[in-house]
Amino acid sequence: MAKYEDLVKRIRGQITAEIWQVGDKLPSLREQVLHSGLSLMTVMHAYQILESQGWIVSRPQSGYYVAPQAKFLAPSPTHEPVQRAEEVGINAFIFDVLQASRDPAIVPFGSAYPDPTLFPRQQISKSLTTVARAMTTLSATDNLPPGNEDLRKILAKRYAMQGIRIDPEEIVITAGALESLNLSLQAVTQPCDWVIVENPCFYGALQALERLRLKALSIAAHPEFGIDLAALEEALKTYPVRACWLMTNIQNPLGCTLSVEKKQQLVALLQRHNVYLIEDDVYGELYAGGEKPLPAKAFDETGMTMHCSSFSKSLVAGFRVGWVAAGNMARKIQQLQLMSTLSTSAPMQLALANYLATRSYDSHLRRLRRVMEQRKYAAWQSLRAHLPQGVNINYSHGGYFLWVELPINVNATELYHRALNERISIAPGQMFSASNQYTNYFRFNVSHEWTDKSEKAVQKLAVIVREMMGIAD
Amino acid sequence: MAKYEDLVKRIRGQITAEIWQVGDKLPSLREQVLHSGLSLMTVMHAYQILESQGWIVSRPQSGYYVAPQAKFLAPSPTHEPVQRAEEVGINAFIFDVLQASRDPAIVPFGSAYPDPTLFPRQQISKSLTTVARAMTTLSATDNLPPGNEDLRKILAKRYAMQGIRIDPEEIVITAGALESLNLSLQAVTQPCDWVIVENPCFYGALQALERLRLKALSIAAHPEFGIDLAALEEALKTYPVRACWLMTNIQNPLGCTLSVEKKQQLVALLQRHNVYLIEDDVYGELYAGGEKPLPAKAFDETGMTMHCSSFSKSLVAGFRVGWVAAGNMARKIQQLQLMSTLSTSAPMQLALANYLATRSYDSHLRRLRRVMEQRKYAAWQSLRAHLPQGVNINYSHGGYFLWVELPINVNATELYHRALNERISIAPGQMFSASNQYTNYFRFNVSHEWTDKSEKAVQKLAVIVREMMGIAD
Repeated sequence: MAKYEDLVKRIRGQITAEIWQVGDKLPSLREQVLHSGLSLMTVMHAYQILESQGWIVSRPQSGYYVAPQAKFLAPSPTHEPVQRAEEVGINAFIFDVLQASRDPAIVPFGSAYPDPTLFPRQQISKSLTTVARAMTTLSATDNLPPGNEDLRKILAKRYAMQGIRIDPEEIVITAGALESLNLSLQAVTQPCDWVIVENPCFYGALQALERLRLKALSIAAHPEFGIDLAALEEALKTYPVRACWLMTNIQNPLGCTLSVEKKQQLVALLQRHNVYLIEDDVYGELYAGGEKPLPAKAFDETGMTMHCSSFSKSLVAGFRVGWVAAGNMARKIQQLQLMSTLSTSAPMQLALANYLATRSYDSHLRRLRRVMEQRKYAAWQSLRAHLPQGVNINYSHGGYFLWVELPINVNATELYHRALNERISIAPGQMFSASNQYTNYFRFNVSHEWTDKSEKAVQKLAVIVREMMGIAD
Repeated sequence: MAKYEDLVKRIRGQITAEIWQVGDKLPSLREQVLHSGLSLMTVMHAYQILESQGWIVSRPQSGYYVAPQAKFLAPSPTHEPVQRAEEVGINAFIFDVLQASRDPAIVPFGSAYPDPTLFPRQQISKSLTTVARAMTTLSATDNLPPGNEDLRKILAKRYAMQGIRIDPEEIVITAGALESLNLSLQAVTQPCDWVIVENPCFYGALQALERLRLKALSIAAHPEFGIDLAALEEALKTYPVRACWLMTNIQNPLGCTLSVEKKQQLVALLQRHNVYLIEDDVYGELYAGGEKPLPAKAFDETGMTMHCSSFSKSLVAGFRVGWVAAGNMARKIQQLQLMSTLSTSAPMQLALANYLATRSYDSHLRRLRRVMEQRKYAAWQSLRAHLPQGVNINYSHGGYFLWVELPINVNATELYHRALNERISIAPGQMFSASNQYTNYFRFNVSHEWTDKSEKAVQKLAVIVREMMGIAD
């Protein structure tokens, strides 16, 4: 990468991280030369590029300032060849991180999965056995898209319990939520369309955009309050946005949940701009507090919200059964599924329908939420006790992740590699950003039982962090 | 569609159907005007377009001739907006055909699936029960890509029994063969790459090309001998082809199997041109005769052949478990799978590994092949007895399809709609062509038990065909 590109990237990162905020004056060319050690030509070139991309504006006789629109800019990683290559690199990196979490010898703080021992495996096994016995009567076409009818009816009832009216015909059963999200995005976009994602966001969204050659607009999300609706509105006014992929409940990696008012505003805003909403709600059942949070789908009046979820985070691992309440796109999504994977495994659909008919799901969920909350508290205490001052741990309400902020100069990807040498995994923040930001953050999985081994692993992690911060023990 | 477009399409179809062969003189402009009832302007416009597309050449003072390269031309359906729209129409049509085959009240001659009562459902059920009992020890990450290790080892052994050396590490387990084919194609192509398919071919290949925005070169396949290697070589010399998607054994819809020599030549030819081979071998176990046909993969020395198959046609319906022996692309394909569906359902993988370890698969396959052959013979006799002269039934060696050729003026899509009114489905030939050819062909499923109902359905079908041919009863 050329030196000026490096500088462009660095300043963009600083603006998105709000080190330079809208209206701030940037260092002058001369100051930047002194500070960076780069030539004047290089610095000028970088500033010109930033100006042409809309990140900064120059005011004659005064200098360079962060532009008003900068706060919702995040140039598409698929836009320029150089950045596309970088994106492929991120995919390979994500692949490595995910593979690392499979080794049972590694402490799985970086894992994306909840501890499967939390799931009602005896009962699921029983349902699967029942289904296995009955499968001799299965026809070849029984459970093709949109999927098993009983299962779709049960899901529609669960929506109804929250006061949301979903027709079973609108639901399509998929190979996990990942397929339902991918098919939804594909159903409403053409290559080069603009799509809004959050920053930070689930890496699967970034990979889907890359795969479908879409352009990303990343809107900043606050660890507590979620997506910035004002910035979203600015972006919708400025760009011909086609779709928006959001996690409204227990966002990954932040853990935040949008308020009901914010969800209503979100849906109204998107409808005003005729933009599809792909709502990723896979952690919705893992809420903290008394009542299950509504999805944005509850406020959808036009059928343009596709509500995607699965059983993988709350009931069973490895079945690969999810769904989408697809609004207007139900038929289109079925067509796309028939072209790519044909259908979801029939016995898996039947086993879930069988289990859910027993009505023990809700009591399981109550227990699951309680245990996860306890484990999260234990993990949080341990992290607080061992990690040095200057490390900030966002306590999430719901879910099984903590989002940890290191000091700005500590690189979480380096921490990941060093921790992996000690057989400890974490999920570095870089995985969750289209623009290679959040390099000083990591996601921490708290779903596993908190043991001496966990405690020791956190102590080791803390030693590495201290070393990286230059703190003597 | 404008009149000249209609004529362009008709002549292209006639050339690909070899009604006009390379070097043949086409009707003169004046003859075409008389014959078609179109204006001279319209006919001239059509001929100019055909010439600009390379289908025909004009020789001064002589007339128009079919161009030498015409035999391997098949303009990409994704190339021009008008044709793309047409392609979406075909997808919707395929969707309708597939949905129609799900209604149990409809005689399923158009179905893509084998009769599931032919499968060892008791034993599979037993395997699934065993797995269900053991699933309490399942970890969340045990069967992520590349998939269950035992299953991959069993598959490698089955390759070894045919003398083919495949490392279990090269195998990726997928959600059926359809996913393995799609991921393989995606792994080796970029949008706008040229890809070779057969004509006619499995519609899933055409849909995959459309979805990934690839350009199709369709090479004619002979009902008995399969793909025309000379035409393939011409195409490889002329176009920068990236990949080739073929069925080497029991081609769908034709039923033909390439000879060993032809497979060797095919692999050598593709290797000379540095072209990837995506080999769809889903019907390979359903061969007729004494020995299982080798895949082209057996002759692959460079790792550029991706051999895709599944258990859906030979063992169990609805499990959605397939695989690819992916050569060099094993890691790339795993990455793509992690991005789109994450993994194949774990209990389904385990159940198949459990069943295959019992070694009863091969005796099941022997019986399956015998019964399918008997049923095919019964269906063939019935079709021969009832369909009028002028209808040609290609008897395939292996598999459970017959490929039926109607007289050129009888439209199989119309036949499909009229038969569906009588609750009989067929699979019209148009589904299997990128260029809307084979409109007077249909595929006929013979896997179901031949009953009085089947016999009566064929009689009804014959009545409609006679009506369409204008033959009085």
